[in-house]
Amino acid sequence: MALIVQKFGGTSVADADRIRNVARIITETYRRGHSLVVVLSAQGDTTDDLIAKAGEINPRGSQREMDMLLSTGEQISCALCAMAIEAMGYPVVSLTGWQAGFKTNSSYGAARIKSVRTERILAELDKRKIVIVTGFQGINKYGDITTLGRGGSDTSAVALAAVLHADLCQIYTDVDGVYTADPRCVKGARKLDEITYDEMLELATLGAQVLHNRSVEMAKRYNVDLEVLSSFTGRPGTKVKEVAKTMEKPYVSGVAKDKNIARLALVGLPDQPGTAFRIFSTLAKHRINVDIIIQSIGRGSTKDISFTIARDDMEEACRILEEVRDALGFDHIDVTDDIAKVSIVGAGMVHNPGVAALMFESLYNAGINIHMISTSEVKVSVLVDKCDADNAVQVVHDRFFEEYGTL
Amino acid sequence: MALIVQKFGGTSVADADRIRNVARIITETYRRGHSLVVVLSAQGDTTDDLIAKAGEINPRGSQREMDMLLSTGEQISCALCAMAIEAMGYPVVSLTGWQAGFKTNSSYGAARIKSVRTERILAELDKRKIVIVTGFQGINKYGDITTLGRGGSDTSAVALAAVLHADLCQIYTDVDGVYTADPRCVKGARKLDEITYDEMLELATLGAQVLHNRSVEMAKRYNVDLEVLSSFTGRPGTKVKEVAKTMEKPYVSGVAKDKNIARLALVGLPDQPGTAFRIFSTLAKHRINVDIIIQSIGRGSTKDISFTIARDDMEEACRILEEVRDALGFDHIDVTDDIAKVSIVGAGMVHNPGVAALMFESLYNAGINIHMISTSEVKVSVLVDKCDADNAVQVVHDRFFEEYGTL
Repeated sequence: MALIVQKFGGTSVADADRIRNVARIITETYRRGHSLVVVLSAQGDTTDDLIAKAGEINPRGSQREMDMLLSTGEQISCALCAMAIEAMGYPVVSLTGWQAGFKTNSSYGAARIKSVRTERILAELDKRKIVIVTGFQGINKYGDITTLGRGGSDTSAVALAAVLHADLCQIYTDVDGVYTADPRCVKGARKLDEITYDEMLELATLGAQVLHNRSVEMAKRYNVDLEVLSSFTGRPGTKVKEVAKTMEKPYVSGVAKDKNIARLALVGLPDQPGTAFRIFSTLAKHRINVDIIIQSIGRGSTKDISFTIARDDMEEACRILEEVRDALGFDHIDVTDDIAKVSIVGAGMVHNPGVAALMFESLYNAGINIHMISTSEVKVSVLVDKCDADNAVQVVHDRFFEEYGTL
Repeated sequence: MALIVQKFGGTSVADADRIRNVARIITETYRRGHSLVVVLSAQGDTTDDLIAKAGEINPRGSQREMDMLLSTGEQISCALCAMAIEAMGYPVVSLTGWQAGFKTNSSYGAARIKSVRTERILAELDKRKIVIVTGFQGINKYGDITTLGRGGSDTSAVALAAVLHADLCQIYTDVDGVYTADPRCVKGARKLDEITYDEMLELATLGAQVLHNRSVEMAKRYNVDLEVLSSFTGRPGTKVKEVAKTMEKPYVSGVAKDKNIARLALVGLPDQPGTAFRIFSTLAKHRINVDIIIQSIGRGSTKDISFTIARDDMEEACRILEEVRDALGFDHIDVTDDIAKVSIVGAGMVHNPGVAALMFESLYNAGINIHMISTSEVKVSVLVDKCDADNAVQVVHDRFFEEYGTL
């Protein structure tokens, strides 16, 4: 008899039939004798529809009122799901974020969870009720409604699993787990049975949008056992945990790509101490996240610094840097978004020094040019031309998963 | 510098343009230096749409979950209206029922307001903010969301006006006041400048759906000055108060009709004490409201009792009474919904004994047959055939408002 937290995303509750399907999954778990807390997102496009409604009235409305508006989406899906469970004859109660005890800071639209007061949930579980909780939201110290930002429902679910000391947190979505590469693009992509938090974090950062990154960080911090699985297929998914059981798994657990990036190069910087600090503190002040950074070895009195950022930030970054060009003393900015990042991720990589070389070799054999390289303990990333990205993922995936054994 | 409560109904906030219109009315009032609390209903058909969504999933879902679902409607309209006011550059905050301090009993779907804790609203007014509050809802002692039932937003507004000791409670709707009869049906119907609570109560009960009856009762109890006016025309509306200013107004202030009724007659009841008690306590136990009751004088050992109820209750009332036929001892039930109630209402009536006779005379002159008659201090109601109802209202209205002076 375990305590299980289940989370269902927007596509899983998009219409009446899908809500009934979710109600079936929930009640089957309950019938096996488990205590059950369920976190739901808003139905399908509800959140986008509400944003559009607000945009029609005031494109720059306050985030405080936006959160008041958006939080209704989950309240609707939770009430409907509770009714579907009632129709099946099971005891159930739905709770809003504030009823479920979610306390957040006051960053409307991107609030962080500060604590979860579980009295109400525990009281309902004691009555053997299935507890349905709105994801994505809480209240701040003023009693105002806040939302956690896109994908925040994953974080709500993991937070609940952490404070309730749940045995398992199941994230139901429209894919049936974490794959070695995007199965829609890469032939031979395989579902992973298990993956570590660190690997999952790298994969999420690298554009594999299965789990919200904040939720994985929180799961790692509180050691919550996660499982990613499909609400449509009923098949076992991928378990995310501290140490994956299969110790002898291959060095690489996945290949990912990210096409939504841009590369900037500041050319002809003076070769002085403090240059890098000034560049990146300027960008940080404007909340622009920098990913890969490469600094060339100085040539005479000048050097170049290149880095990648999200493509959406490209124009603003250029504008900001042009403003401080005289202070930084560079010659010009070289910028392109015609690039993509391809990465391999794997906890075993650090103990297998030849892994990066195998990746470079497979790209070389396919005639793909590498522009930048970045490595960490659990990943190797390369920048390639955007037109090469899909092929790059395929050849790298083939190299590690076709030739070097199965998982 | 007054404190004013304004309430806008669903048609007044149905789309972005209308919300902007409402925001203009609100900010104009604010600019005149008044403190302002605004109560909103859900947009247009939102509530019906949500009910339909629930019906698709579970036609007999619990009312507790239904309230969780329906309360989102007002939250959406309030957030959007607040954004419209922000766009005009005024300070504003929207509050849900629980944030605004509405405490109710636990009759989900038809909750009664027990108290309103005004701390939050007063704090926002102190900051010179326009306060937008969701109508129709509150929370019970368990912290669960309740709704007040259809039309409950009027009640929310009057309750706020009462606890805040507001100088005026303006109910904005899609008609520009209370008329001497339904202006869509009756030629010569005129808008009333003022009307008493008692007259308004009778008119509301009689089917003039301008104000929710509970709200008028509450306004009378707490002596809240009401004004009914249109959010579309900008013209003065009708004031509802304890004593209307124009003391010399005519005896009759309005003519109303109600076609949604049924008449039941229990024929051949034993002429014994306690019969009426048993009939009407049985119906009350099943929450069926009885309106007009007529008991015939006994003929020998039997008598008949006739009464009217809402048409929606007709079938259930017949079923319930048939079940206790032996205990009551009647011969058969005679039932029809092919009838309508036509009433005249006026606080001056009690001092003018000939009023009822004038009404009967005008109906006789028009060849309209009267089936039942009921009188109170401020009204006279008659039952007529449904096909005669429109004509009956017109001839009665002509009699009192064409021939006997203007208001």
